[in-house]
Formats: sequence, structure tokens, C-alpha cells
Amino acid sequence: MRGKPRGVGSPAIYPEGTFPRVLPLPAVQWSDDRRALRILDQRRLPETEVVRDLATLEEIIDAIRTLAVRGAPAIGVAAAIGLAVAMRHADSPGTPSRERLSDYAARLIAARPTAVNLAWAVRRLERCAEGVPDQALLSVLEAEAEAIRAEDVAMCAAIGAHGAPLVADGCRVLTHCNAGALATAGAGTALAPVYAAHAAGRRVSVFADETRPLRQGARLTAWELTRAGIPVQVLPDGAAASLLAQGLVDLVLVGADRITANGDVANKVGTYGVALAARAHGVPLYVAAPWSTIDPATATGAAIVIEHRGADELAPLPPGAGVWNPAFDVTPAALIAGYITDRGLVHPPFTT
Amino acid sequence: MRGKPRGVGSPAIYPEGTFPRVLPLPAVQWSDDRRALRILDQRRLPETEVVRDLATLEEIIDAIRTLAVRGAPAIGVAAAIGLAVAMRHADSPGTPSRERLSDYAARLIAARPTAVNLAWAVRRLERCAEGVPDQALLSVLEAEAEAIRAEDVAMCAAIGAHGAPLVADGCRVLTHCNAGALATAGAGTALAPVYAAHAAGRRVSVFADETRPLRQGARLTAWELTRAGIPVQVLPDGAAASLLAQGLVDLVLVGADRITANGDVANKVGTYGVALAARAHGVPLYVAAPWSTIDPATATGAAIVIEHRGADELAPLPPGAGVWNPAFDVTPAALIAGYITDRGLVHPPFTT
Repeated sequence: MRGKPRGVGSPAIYPEGTFPRVLPLPAVQWSDDRRALRILDQRRLPETEVVRDLATLEEIIDAIRTLAVRGAPAIGVAAAIGLAVAMRHADSPGTPSRERLSDYAARLIAARPTAVNLAWAVRRLERCAEGVPDQALLSVLEAEAEAIRAEDVAMCAAIGAHGAPLVADGCRVLTHCNAGALATAGAGTALAPVYAAHAAGRRVSVFADETRPLRQGARLTAWELTRAGIPVQVLPDGAAASLLAQGLVDLVLVGADRITANGDVANKVGTYGVALAARAHGVPLYVAAPWSTIDPATATGAAIVIEHRGADELAPLPPGAGVWNPAFDVTPAALIAGYITDRGLVHPPFTT
Repeated sequence: MRGKPRGVGSPAIYPEGTFPRVLPLPAVQWSDDRRALRILDQRRLPETEVVRDLATLEEIIDAIRTLAVRGAPAIGVAAAIGLAVAMRHADSPGTPSRERLSDYAARLIAARPTAVNLAWAVRRLERCAEGVPDQALLSVLEAEAEAIRAEDVAMCAAIGAHGAPLVADGCRVLTHCNAGALATAGAGTALAPVYAAHAAGRRVSVFADETRPLRQGARLTAWELTRAGIPVQVLPDGAAASLLAQGLVDLVLVGADRITANGDVANKVGTYGVALAARAHGVPLYVAAPWSTIDPATATGAAIVIEHRGADELAPLPPGAGVWNPAFDVTPAALIAGYITDRGLVHPPFTT
């Protein structure tokens, strides 16, 4: 039944709190007194696990800008909670809170202008504040931020539930970059089915591409899987094809930055090469992402403008050498076995 | 005319000294007074260009063991010159030179036990010394070492000549790892056709895969190409597939560590993924290697045992994470457009 979202079997969807806890603490959450944004500082991983509580706008912008928080869903949640706590932190008698809200919102969005989820979350808080009496403003912002966080947790749990049936006992999964708990407020996207299968008592092991140039696989995916007690082996990106050729992988799971109307997927550079090798050796590749990643306004991957990044990420290099350093690549729909979303396992054309 | 070595057109083979000088100095050569092995220290590249003259056995073993000299052909030449100069350096009245030769030979071979060219070069010097009067020993060793060096230079020049017709004006070449001048005593293997085309006045540019984990592409290939005045752009290994997808590559040139009887090729890990992507986008991939790389005793790539390397090459990693770090992969003959050897552009089955 292509073209309509559908579940795999009838997986139970986890009410909040019932999906297995993956990390000792979420990548982004409220502090205990709900007066601060609490993050696990991803700049320090895997060497050190640093938890930071951020309450001022400057601290929150700095964390987003310097990638202490990263991953599209996690950035959205961090911006929402961050805006709510910064507004409360700054609140004092006589201050015009609505002007400050506009000012803070604009400054947050400017912290990472290309992060779609950041702008989306901030604008959602701004919208919900419209027409609200001044004395209720802070509590309305906090409630909306909490809704965004809870929805993200639920999204991860639903992806985990819909994807778990693909992860059989003994399954060996290959993944690329980090689309795990560290990229969300919950259990992740591409890794959520792995965590769900693990929690269900199935043996599962993961191969994590190192993911040059920023090494998210080696630093982040390997860290969160070992923390969750799931065996993980890191490989150089160039070794993925021979890993697949040797029959050592049963399933490839990756995230997505954007899914176009026809099912093409923009994701971290390297995904396309993995997809070609998976196809060559008959290993299915699934994309796991929130339904909101589907962009019906973009027809195919050919229309996606790919961000190119600087030479510093590939340093040291000899003087005079250039770089070709795209952040993403496009995997055509023909190489993708299915799309694991919070609305079920779906295929293009995607319909709501 | 498959199965017989044949040239592409009728390229002139370069007599020694007439092939264009690629680097300011060869990766391995004699010192000016021929009493030392002169190397370009590859541990220091690309940051610093350090030339070292090595005369004692200990210095030479250390250079080979610590990868100051690397690349199969260069290691063979370094061992040959190194053994000759170490024998002269140590020579003193009353010393039994033949015992020392056996001792030195064994210690050199033990420096990198898996380096086939090293053992081959050392044994060739030992063989040529058999039956030679003591007073002629040093000069015979030096002559044989020089023959090995000159043959390597000629091999590179012949590969350059046979491969140059593939590199048209404006050609954009993708390569992986370093199979260039730094890996030989001459102009390299995979890069020799690039240098020959450049010297012939054709515009040629190169994309160099970074080549994790040891970054030979970023450190060495990019260095020697910029030194030779050829434009080069370094890309993360994971970006090669999208580079090919975007139509930015006309020709893929790679080296080989071993070529089996059916034409399968063991080369630096990552080559196979590049070959799959090149095939998917209709870009021809050629393997350039000395004829001696062909191993008729091994039927197919399935019989090749691949060396796996340690976790330190992928550090830092979180505690508890494993690695899957093979040094090589195998590209099946079906993905290879041709084999550029010093005997011409050939195809399997290979016949002498």
C-alpha cells in the first residue's frame, strides 16, 4: 500500500516515559527547577561528559553556535526551552517583555541561520504568545517549549516503534553520522529502532562510519551506543563498501536532513556512497526521520542546494591545496528501501 | 587484443632523466657522494620538507619502520640503497662482511615484515653478492642497488607514458591514497600519467580523497601535486560518490598493492567504494601499477588476506568502542577499465 503511511505490524507506540531511557540524561532538557536549559556538552564528547545549565540568552546562543547542542531536532528543542528560560531569567519589573521576546527570538535565529528547526521552534513560541496577557506570557512560553520537547521525545519513540520490527535478533546495523539520542531530546531517529530492539531483548550491534570531516560517528554515535550498552565498531568511511561486500551488515539505518517529494534524501555527506554499496550487496537501507523532514514543495534532490564548508575541517593541508567539502549529499529514492517516520513506515509519494 | 600487454597509441618511453622532474628531489635517492640514502621525510609532510641523509643500518631501519619512507616501490629502493650504504659505512679491516650482510639483510626485512618489496630488494642484493670476491662486494652491492633504483624510475616513466593518452586536455582526475612520486623513486604510478600529461602541456586537475585513517591523500598526494604546479582539491572520502554524481570527474586513477590473476585489485581501503560510484556514473577507473604487482599465483581477490589495523588510527574514540579498520579492500575486475603497467595498458588474463 504505497503512498500511505503505514506501520510495520502493529507496534505499540510508547507513551512518554515508557520508551527505554537511552542515555544517563537527554541531550537537551529542562534543569530540575525548570529555570535553565540543561545540555550535555557535545563539544567535549567523547573524552568528557559535561552537563551544563544555561539560563541567559548569551549562554544559550553560544551553545547553539559552537555546536555544544547539535542535530536538527535537538537544536529546535534547545531554542524553545532556551527562549522560555532566558525570558524568565531576564524578567524584571518595568521591562517590556514583548519587545524583549522579539529581540531574543531574532538573536536566537541568527545563531545558526540555516537551522530550519531553530527558526521553526522560535516562531512557534512567538505565535503562541500573541494576544496573551503580559502576566501569563512566561507560563505560556514555558508550556509551549515543553510541548515542543515532549513532541520530540514522542517522535523519537514512534520512529523507534515503527522501525524496531526491522531490527531482528542478531541484527548488524550500519549507520552514518549521528542521528541518535544526542541529536534529539529523545532516543534519536536512525538509532531509535536500534534502542527499541535492544530494549526488547534482541541482540543488536552497530557499525558506525567515522563520518569525516567532523567525526560525528566516532565521537557521538559510538559514545551514545557504548553508554547504552550496545556493541559498536567504528570504521573509516572508506571501509563501508568492503564491510558490506563481506556480508557483515544486515541493515543500513541513516537519518535525513531533507526528504523531497519523490523520496530523494539529503543527509550527511557519505550517505550516498553507503547507499550505492548497500544496493550492490543487497542490503536494505532505510531512512529514519520525523515526518516534518518531508518537504513536499521540493520535487527532487536535484533542486537541493548543498552547503559547502571550509578547508579548516580538512586541516592540515599543504599550502595551495583546495578542498571540495560539501556538508550533505543526495541519495536517490531508488536506493532507499523505506522511510521510518513517526507516522509509520512510508514510501513516496508521501500523503498526509 | 585482450590478454596481451599493449600500448595506447605509440607513446614514447622516456629514457632515464627525460621524464619530467616532478618533485624538487626524489622521495628516495643516493646522497651526492653516494655514501648515504637521501630521503624526503614523509612523517613531516605536508607541514615541513625535511631531507635526511641516512648512512647507518639503525637510521635506515628507523626510517622504514616509522614511515619516513613509505609506498611499496620506494621502500624497496630505500632498502636496496640502504643496505649498500650501511655495508660501506660499517666496513672496516677484519670485519667479516658476508656475515654482516646476512645480519643486516635479516634486520632490514624485519623492519616491516609485510612489505613484499622490501624483502624482494634485500634478497636481490644478497643473491647478486653470491660468489663475488670480498674486495668487490661493496661495489657489486652498490651497482645492484642502483639498478633497482633506476628500474623503478624507468617503471614510473613507462607507466606515465602508457597512461598519458588517457589524460586529455582539461581532464579532471580523481585519485585515492598516494600512489605518486612520494611512493616511488620516480614519478609515481597512479599519478605518473597525470605528470606526463601536465608536462605535455595539457591542463589537468586532480581531486584527492583524504584517505582516512592515515590521510595520505591530504598529506602526500596534495603536497606533491601542489609542488608540481598541478591544481588539487582534497575531499573527505565520503564525498567521492557525490563528486562523481555531479559529473565533476572524467577519469579515476588508483594504484594497487596486489593484482590477482583474474584482475581483482587489492588497494588502500576506500578504493572499492570509489569504484562502485565511478561505475554508477559511467566514469572509467584505471589501475596503475608495476607489472610486478600482478600475482598470477592468486586466482581472485577472495584469496587475499586483508591486514586489519589498530584503534589508535581512529582515535579519539569513546571507551568501549571497537574498530573495524582494514588497511586494504578488494575491487573486482569487472569495475576496472584497464591496467596501466610499465609493459603497457593491459587486461586480464595477464600474460608475460
